[in-house]
Amino acid sequence: MKENLPECQAKVRIYLDWAATAIPEKDGDGRNIDCTVFGNPSSLHREGRAAREALESARARCARILGVLPEKLYFTSGGTESNALLLHSLLLRKGKGRLLYPAIEHPSVRENCHVLERLNIPVSVIGVEKDGRVSERTMAGALEKHPEARFAAVMGVNNETGSFMDIGTLVSLVRSNQKKTNLPVHFHSDLVQALGKVPLDVTGWDLDSAAFSGHKLGGPRGIGLLYLKKPIEPLYTGGEQERGVRPGTENTMGALALADVLERRANPDTVKAEGEKAAERFKYLIGKLKKINRCALIPEDRGDEDTRFSPWILQMRFRGLPGAVMVRALDDAGVAVSTGSACSSASPERPVLAAMGVDAPGRLEGFRISQGWSTEMSDIDALLSAIEKALSFL
Amino acid sequence: MKENLPECQAKVRIYLDWAATAIPEKDGDGRNIDCTVFGNPSSLHREGRAAREALESARARCARILGVLPEKLYFTSGGTESNALLLHSLLLRKGKGRLLYPAIEHPSVRENCHVLERLNIPVSVIGVEKDGRVSERTMAGALEKHPEARFAAVMGVNNETGSFMDIGTLVSLVRSNQKKTNLPVHFHSDLVQALGKVPLDVTGWDLDSAAFSGHKLGGPRGIGLLYLKKPIEPLYTGGEQERGVRPGTENTMGALALADVLERRANPDTVKAEGEKAAERFKYLIGKLKKINRCALIPEDRGDEDTRFSPWILQMRFRGLPGAVMVRALDDAGVAVSTGSACSSASPERPVLAAMGVDAPGRLEGFRISQGWSTEMSDIDALLSAIEKALSFL
Repeated sequence: MKENLPECQAKVRIYLDWAATAIPEKDGDGRNIDCTVFGNPSSLHREGRAAREALESARARCARILGVLPEKLYFTSGGTESNALLLHSLLLRKGKGRLLYPAIEHPSVRENCHVLERLNIPVSVIGVEKDGRVSERTMAGALEKHPEARFAAVMGVNNETGSFMDIGTLVSLVRSNQKKTNLPVHFHSDLVQALGKVPLDVTGWDLDSAAFSGHKLGGPRGIGLLYLKKPIEPLYTGGEQERGVRPGTENTMGALALADVLERRANPDTVKAEGEKAAERFKYLIGKLKKINRCALIPEDRGDEDTRFSPWILQMRFRGLPGAVMVRALDDAGVAVSTGSACSSASPERPVLAAMGVDAPGRLEGFRISQGWSTEMSDIDALLSAIEKALSFL
Repeated sequence: MKENLPECQAKVRIYLDWAATAIPEKDGDGRNIDCTVFGNPSSLHREGRAAREALESARARCARILGVLPEKLYFTSGGTESNALLLHSLLLRKGKGRLLYPAIEHPSVRENCHVLERLNIPVSVIGVEKDGRVSERTMAGALEKHPEARFAAVMGVNNETGSFMDIGTLVSLVRSNQKKTNLPVHFHSDLVQALGKVPLDVTGWDLDSAAFSGHKLGGPRGIGLLYLKKPIEPLYTGGEQERGVRPGTENTMGALALADVLERRANPDTVKAEGEKAAERFKYLIGKLKKINRCALIPEDRGDEDTRFSPWILQMRFRGLPGAVMVRALDDAGVAVSTGSACSSASPERPVLAAMGVDAPGRLEGFRISQGWSTEMSDIDALLSAIEKALSFL
């Protein structure tokens, strides 16, 4: 043990591999970062091996919660990167075929499909029902129209409306179509808004790939997962980290924090119990909202216990009131809600609502309420009071 | 304030924007994450605006240390992503021209250039001198041979040998050549091993772009920077975060930690003072090593105070002893060193040494010592004793 050094640096042996990674500084709050696993997991020395073990233990814990094999999980910097990495790997795939995706996808799927189209990969849109869901009907329609499709991406839960896709059934449909065309189709699902919120069965659904994020569950920023049934060749390359799928020194601390949060928030029992509580709060909220004259849900026929939607996300509007005005008024009243996706808050367009056939006033007026596990009935009441107050002067 | 909630969750107002980001859980050690800036910086409510302010303050602090304008810095997940993002943006650039890079580049430049070549972007290699440096001579040779070049990437400090490139002079050379050909050349520099280790002048050198990492300086994993003189269009897209250059919910906590570590480790006075101390330790080490019969530095003519090299990284060999054997023997003796880059430790090839003309035995035998600010003379003595011990039985 050396004297006069941060605890962290004193604990380590003679460390002369700073070019691989430095011994961590104290973090912003003056606390030491856990130094037992500071090594670069690719380094061969004891510090590296300890970090490798920690990383693999984090992977195994995440895999157990997701019900998949650890070797099929790859740590990324988040859901957006997981989607982008998977999609752009198609540039290196042999036998480029058409990509299918619904316009309700998160920008990290939708916009990357646009980029791929510019790079000469054919892309087509899967229709959605008025409730914002990709149904068996719309999926079958897309497959019939585009028998040459080789890739489909459908998200588990839409981030703006909470519309809840029956991914297992959609994959089955694609698989049985595959038998007819004899063309393998890669089925990807962005499960960022599904993880920890609705039951998942990545393996049972027979997905080829899926994207997950940590921070939507209360984990730190900058860590996510990509599930891959079979390895892919990524476009962005570099070191051989994550078995060649995701280059860059591995974020061991992020991976451990993600494992913690998955165990706490995404285990099936908790998801079920918290989902029931969330549904109860939304039943109460929706019941109250339906009594407000100017209020409409999006879609309008969303019921107060509607299994077509995640009980965590609600899109709604007040006729004659732009969503952005409502967001500001509620913010002033101490309640944080949003219009659409934070990832596209700079853009006034609402492609998700447009895909559902919501008219221009509805697209302008729509805003989103999304709850979490520490949301209480008293928060719902506070929201309702804030809405009442806002409506009284708007 | 709510009762019975983690401190973190009690502090916030009525938060109903969980689909944008969740209120953070306690971290792995049971400590609360700082909640004042947990919001999604793209959200329009108070929590989002506070996070945005924090993120921009972090950017401004990083910019001040790097001597650049804040709006030219983009947060990424690390050095590898910064390099990959920049290189793959070339797929969307109009007027694709030839890329030039030396074989000594980090895999995140070298390997991505190989991928771009497969996607029909012409790529050529810049030669290096026997000391592993891109010199004015080798750079001029590459420009003469490839007048159609539109892009050059040269790293500041090589991660395996510490060879130290005179980036300012190399950029000048490219700029004066540009005047003759009338073709703009984008000059990128991977400064991951240079930051905090040698003096930098990103603006004065007139770089078009540069990559930086946090963890090599003792910051957390998963955060890095891309400097861009002018915005680019990235290949991986999604939300409009980082002004459209790097999608994905911004890692505010990582950005703040990076700003902390830059202020502590990369301010010019510290870099100068620590560099002098590092040079002194290496002078002592190299002096001792030169007295060991089987020992050779790589390159062999590296002096004990040689300004062609960073005083933080040393590549060396013991004749007849594979580098991997030496790494293992030193590890057993309590000293962590490595062969080449951790990012390519799985590969037995040593392209950096090969580019320098090091012969096959030298490539097999080379290993790296890299020191840091908490390295002491006693560590160097411990290394020397461990080497002596290892040589006595190997």
